[in-house]
Amino acid sequence: MHLIAIGGSDAGISAALRARELDPSVDVTVVVADSYPNFSICGIPYYFSGEVAPWQSLAHRTHAELEATGMRLRLDTFATAIDVPGQRLTVRDSTGTETDLRYDELIVGTGALPSAAGIAGLDTLGPDDGVHVLHSMGDTFALDAHLTDRDPKTAIIIGAGYVGLEMAEALTIRGLKVTQLQRGPEVLSTLDPELGALVHRELDSHGVEVITSARVEAVTKTDHSLVVSGRHDDAPFERTADLVLAVVGVRPNTDLLQRAGAQLGAGRAVVVDESMRTGLPHVFAAGDGVVTHHPLLGVTYLPLGTTAHKQGRIAGENALGGTARFAGSVGTQVVKVFDLVAARTGLREHEAIPAGFSPVSTTAVADDHKAYYPGAQPISIRVTGDGETGKLLGAQLVGARGTETAKRVDTFATALFHGMTVAGISDLDLSYTPPLGSPWDAVQVATQRWEREHVKVEVRA
Amino acid sequence: MHLIAIGGSDAGISAALRARELDPSVDVTVVVADSYPNFSICGIPYYFSGEVAPWQSLAHRTHAELEATGMRLRLDTFATAIDVPGQRLTVRDSTGTETDLRYDELIVGTGALPSAAGIAGLDTLGPDDGVHVLHSMGDTFALDAHLTDRDPKTAIIIGAGYVGLEMAEALTIRGLKVTQLQRGPEVLSTLDPELGALVHRELDSHGVEVITSARVEAVTKTDHSLVVSGRHDDAPFERTADLVLAVVGVRPNTDLLQRAGAQLGAGRAVVVDESMRTGLPHVFAAGDGVVTHHPLLGVTYLPLGTTAHKQGRIAGENALGGTARFAGSVGTQVVKVFDLVAARTGLREHEAIPAGFSPVSTTAVADDHKAYYPGAQPISIRVTGDGETGKLLGAQLVGARGTETAKRVDTFATALFHGMTVAGISDLDLSYTPPLGSPWDAVQVATQRWEREHVKVEVRA
Repeated sequence: MHLIAIGGSDAGISAALRARELDPSVDVTVVVADSYPNFSICGIPYYFSGEVAPWQSLAHRTHAELEATGMRLRLDTFATAIDVPGQRLTVRDSTGTETDLRYDELIVGTGALPSAAGIAGLDTLGPDDGVHVLHSMGDTFALDAHLTDRDPKTAIIIGAGYVGLEMAEALTIRGLKVTQLQRGPEVLSTLDPELGALVHRELDSHGVEVITSARVEAVTKTDHSLVVSGRHDDAPFERTADLVLAVVGVRPNTDLLQRAGAQLGAGRAVVVDESMRTGLPHVFAAGDGVVTHHPLLGVTYLPLGTTAHKQGRIAGENALGGTARFAGSVGTQVVKVFDLVAARTGLREHEAIPAGFSPVSTTAVADDHKAYYPGAQPISIRVTGDGETGKLLGAQLVGARGTETAKRVDTFATALFHGMTVAGISDLDLSYTPPLGSPWDAVQVATQRWEREHVKVEVRA
Repeated sequence: MHLIAIGGSDAGISAALRARELDPSVDVTVVVADSYPNFSICGIPYYFSGEVAPWQSLAHRTHAELEATGMRLRLDTFATAIDVPGQRLTVRDSTGTETDLRYDELIVGTGALPSAAGIAGLDTLGPDDGVHVLHSMGDTFALDAHLTDRDPKTAIIIGAGYVGLEMAEALTIRGLKVTQLQRGPEVLSTLDPELGALVHRELDSHGVEVITSARVEAVTKTDHSLVVSGRHDDAPFERTADLVLAVVGVRPNTDLLQRAGAQLGAGRAVVVDESMRTGLPHVFAAGDGVVTHHPLLGVTYLPLGTTAHKQGRIAGENALGGTARFAGSVGTQVVKVFDLVAARTGLREHEAIPAGFSPVSTTAVADDHKAYYPGAQPISIRVTGDGETGKLLGAQLVGARGTETAKRVDTFATALFHGMTVAGISDLDLSYTPPLGSPWDAVQVATQRWEREHVKVEVRA
């Protein structure tokens, strides 16, 4: 039995680890496009901030640790074609040599690629010009070289999503003057603007210049700097900097599977079922290149590292003949921006409406612990539920670091997983001690506020 | 419609608040035995440590805030008898005057009383002798006066449960030399000894002298000090101190309801159903005086402030004709001891066996966030599941303050509420960012460890 996993990031490595864990007699090969298997791409901003060093420590597991599990790694090796009927994978190594590898089962975890979002210049300008993306260790080394060798003083970050915000913090810590351009009306567009505004304020207070409603159209290079231009509130705008980082989202990397005959679905990602089967015989796929099953949305595209780990683990189990099913993602996400933590899970109103719900939302501000105990800090919690059925649809939380906001969103995520109502959250037996909570946890303070606004309790009296 | 709630603590006030919230036309009277309605008894240790001041700030709500909700408070008023057929409550005020109050619905939240655990002397010695319990604001003032007026240098705390540990910390911070006596083999006997030992070490490192397996038999008073004596590892022992605090548990305060004809059940607490009805017409009860419904244990006795809040809220709703049901407690608890946080939810093995389960447990140590990001700290997580069905039965967690341990136990609590399997926890979409978590959260690292030890996954290969 020979299992091949393509991809050295979350999905591929998780699949390989799971297969080796379940059956150490299985021969497992992982084909990795670069030299950096199992690196924590999510950790890259903390390398640039100087909080993580050396870069090697970003590896979830070292090469040696991976090999100790019994898997074989083929580094700097690019998968070029799948012969589905013949169960063969063609790979090309760094010398250009092509080899055919026979497999019994194949798991494709080729992930996603940085999007250019239609911005002119991003296709032609690159690291040598001072224009960067941040999606691989190669990108990391290129940006690192730029920072070290050319000592830029100013940076423009296009995009204010998770990586954009983390890099705004990192480059600010590193001493650069950062301008952050956001297309939408508020930063962190995965939150409702009223909560995104709290993140915006945190960026302001740390000296990041944030420009929202800025539609970037082009990046161009002059003799001395880079020029980012576009429209801001329908007027033209232009900003210059020594360095440009474009972090405007990703698109699924589907080329290999498409050529092998796989179907594309939501978000133009590869269609898989909950067992991570592509429909092509003996070919599984997982991670940022495939569609995401979501209990509230059905099949969507929602690339997240946590999901890639889960899907990879399931693919690895099923490739060995298991019967695991991906139970679905509810889109739980969290980001730290300077001293603030912002998290969400489930749906916001505009996402819930097309899914057939009647969402209504309420924002509460609740202390992380009893106000009388020193250090209590507010958490803003916006709860979205279905106004007709009372079903919990989603939650967004913003609180200071230290308020356990990241793990409070997990209670909402677990509740969503089980299809709870908003009112049902009050039934949960959550922990309480005055330095760390309240008899009704902040989570329940928020859901009870939603209840008061949106539920009429029937009593006889 | 006149609703009377007896008890100014969690259950009584929650009931009254809920009734007023649902129907502001309802006349609500709360009968409070002392002058301190809605005080946070759980916060008392932080008053003694000096972290909370003045003592008035321990009120969840002030007298004025309570009255602003429209409820009427009768302070320093003791409920002496219930005339069930006549729907009348006899109360005695501080002058000794007895009055009969007519009610349409009655909610009894008389709580619990400190246990003496059969220790001789605790019945006769009191605050004037330097022997204290800590269950009310009155107890608080007595201990405060002792500390202020007599400046004791040494204290013996009998008991190492939640309050005992918090008071060991508080009195240590206050400069007393504390000796903590624990009957069982390890402190915090609500945890397995291997996790309790971590708390023990924390006490040690802060200078608390901990003596486990110490069976206290008597407290006596000499001219100059108090003597606590008993047996330690089957040999007699004796310790002297300026102050003794006995915190050895509670017993339900059922006298009033018993005399009215209510039945006693688990833990000799008053029997109620999930609607908080006692079976006596128009008489509800809630809080530390009543039995606790538990999804894994059935009906038990497990007094907790969080449960009292929930039960009180349900009683308040149902007294108005509502149909709320108490969904059950899974016994979630957390305590901060110096810089350590210890939490549990669900069952430990010795609790699960009599309930018909086949429990097996595994302890994992997982970082609270990615090790490469500064400040990562280990959380010890002990997972108990049913070896035959894979059902999650309980979890115990001990981690440093700042590791979000208190809210990680909530994920386990929510999972228990839904009857999840241990393996199912890996399906939960928990949040991840390197400074605050891992792609598989520490919770999932622990459940996967349990799985590896106790689940055989069937694959074909």
